[in-house]
Amino acid sequence: MKKVAVIGGGVTGLEAANQLAQMGYSVTVFEKKNAPGGQVSKWDRLFPNRRHSIDVVNELKSHLNGNPAIYLSTAINKITKNDERFQLEAYNQIFEADAVLIATGFELFPAERKEEYGYGIYDNVITSAELEGMFKEYGHPIMRNGNAPKRIAFIHCVGSRDEKVKRPYCSKVCCVTAVKQAIEVKEAIPEAEIFCLYMDLRMFGPGYEDLYKEAQQKGINFIRGRLSEASELDGGRVLIKTEDTLSSKPLKMSVDMVVLMVGMSPAEGTDELIAALGLQTNKDGFVEITDYHLNPVKTKVDGVFTAGACTGPNNITDSVNAARSAAIEIHKYLNSR
Amino acid sequence: MKKVAVIGGGVTGLEAANQLAQMGYSVTVFEKKNAPGGQVSKWDRLFPNRRHSIDVVNELKSHLNGNPAIYLSTAINKITKNDERFQLEAYNQIFEADAVLIATGFELFPAERKEEYGYGIYDNVITSAELEGMFKEYGHPIMRNGNAPKRIAFIHCVGSRDEKVKRPYCSKVCCVTAVKQAIEVKEAIPEAEIFCLYMDLRMFGPGYEDLYKEAQQKGINFIRGRLSEASELDGGRVLIKTEDTLSSKPLKMSVDMVVLMVGMSPAEGTDELIAALGLQTNKDGFVEITDYHLNPVKTKVDGVFTAGACTGPNNITDSVNAARSAAIEIHKYLNSR
Repeated sequence: MKKVAVIGGGVTGLEAANQLAQMGYSVTVFEKKNAPGGQVSKWDRLFPNRRHSIDVVNELKSHLNGNPAIYLSTAINKITKNDERFQLEAYNQIFEADAVLIATGFELFPAERKEEYGYGIYDNVITSAELEGMFKEYGHPIMRNGNAPKRIAFIHCVGSRDEKVKRPYCSKVCCVTAVKQAIEVKEAIPEAEIFCLYMDLRMFGPGYEDLYKEAQQKGINFIRGRLSEASELDGGRVLIKTEDTLSSKPLKMSVDMVVLMVGMSPAEGTDELIAALGLQTNKDGFVEITDYHLNPVKTKVDGVFTAGACTGPNNITDSVNAARSAAIEIHKYLNSR
Repeated sequence: MKKVAVIGGGVTGLEAANQLAQMGYSVTVFEKKNAPGGQVSKWDRLFPNRRHSIDVVNELKSHLNGNPAIYLSTAINKITKNDERFQLEAYNQIFEADAVLIATGFELFPAERKEEYGYGIYDNVITSAELEGMFKEYGHPIMRNGNAPKRIAFIHCVGSRDEKVKRPYCSKVCCVTAVKQAIEVKEAIPEAEIFCLYMDLRMFGPGYEDLYKEAQQKGINFIRGRLSEASELDGGRVLIKTEDTLSSKPLKMSVDMVVLMVGMSPAEGTDELIAALGLQTNKDGFVEITDYHLNPVKTKVDGVFTAGACTGPNNITDSVNAARSAAIEIHKYLNSR
């Protein structure tokens, strides 16, 4: 039975592994964290229909019954190819495979790199992922002092479209996530005043515009502008300064909580992982796709495929389809040898 | 050999058909137009890398060598299911299949429905698709009088994000297409002044922001505002009126040519086609996906699958992956029976 190694146990890796196992391959997923599911596990509910993230992850995990197998806490550091076989090096082991899928996903942009936003310094500046954690635990956001915030600002494009932090690209899912979260906060705390500070509202997918409309109807305020800096006031409130680029007026406002919509950064180590194969990341640091139009899962190395957010910011729908697309290509590759 | 019917011979349909034929199924593509390739055939070059559209279409067509077969000028009007078999009705024939893929794609929004823009009335108001035709034929845009335009305005969101014409959704690809076309016009006519009138610049995919930056560097002007109306001046020039929503000033300008970035509308007839199966379109008129997160190609009817732009605006990369995703699901469905 031919062996396929899937690097990454997030949505893309798990979906591809399930498909490949059903096709009759011996599939092993290598996940560097101690649980499968990837970044999606941090989320409470998913756009556009606010489905519980845990349901999606559980369904994907339910197929991990030997084949596909999964090695947790197992970071593959290097892949080499010899005689049409791949050697995958982990900390203290070497695995072999006939084909490899790179599905290392993304990492959330480290918000502390935007020093001027005060993340990690001010009590009530949190990330979008932390807000999801609060939804899971309490059903609503909670300030450091234990109270529910009454004025909340969502800051779009944190670690996206930002040359200064070397993230010039759009992370694709943060706008719709912010709108989803704003609606959820409003439902949990009806008296809350909510502001979304955006650059362009990129609501381009199925149902996204409907969410935007719903948010406007619920009284959520949309302000076009980029946060310049945040500072802490007495009592843990946060003063934010921006320019409203629609009215061209500088804008100062104080809020109880700031939610930073952190973008998708390339997963650490993926560049080194693929380097030994002679593969490179693109200028944004993601795994390079060689053919956008006819084969978006192929790399320059025969037998090595890639899919999902490690190729660039992506949503779940498109990642699942890309995972299956890769499974088909891997099948054809192995079948032809 | 089990039979699969693919409705629609655009990128999605052709890709899925190729994959299914390779899996050993007898595949027939039904295309209502007299040539395969779908809407993409109208394009000269494709974002993000300005590859020639014809190369992509030719590659996809090259597999149409009996299996998959293609019936051109063959509109399927109705699909019914009896005893796990599907009957597909065309004008004067009935075809049978064991599984069906709905891949009817999209139609370009009929620009004449935005009467106030003067499409079909004024000489030099054209659509984005017509501009592509000019690129193919002349390598640059051309006015009705045969001259090259020197001032061109691209109008984003024509038939998108517009409740008035019942297209409340974003068409996803028009922003990046406009920026690509603006760059191409500037390269063909270096002295041209070019303006993009946008609502939000939705440059969310791989390389899109780079195109936007390139356009800015090349001196293309981006104005945030929605066209309210166009009127014709002497000599075929066009006066456009808008409000610059960044400066809140009404804006009037005359240009030689207006390019309307027409959005993606649901393909006519798809709703009726699927109605006999008990399937519905979603509120935007596209084929309903039942599971965004775990199975984005499944419909509510066993044996009927869907992929590509008939499920909502989509780009080629994601459509190709969705086509393969559907091929896998069709294979599993047929294999399990």
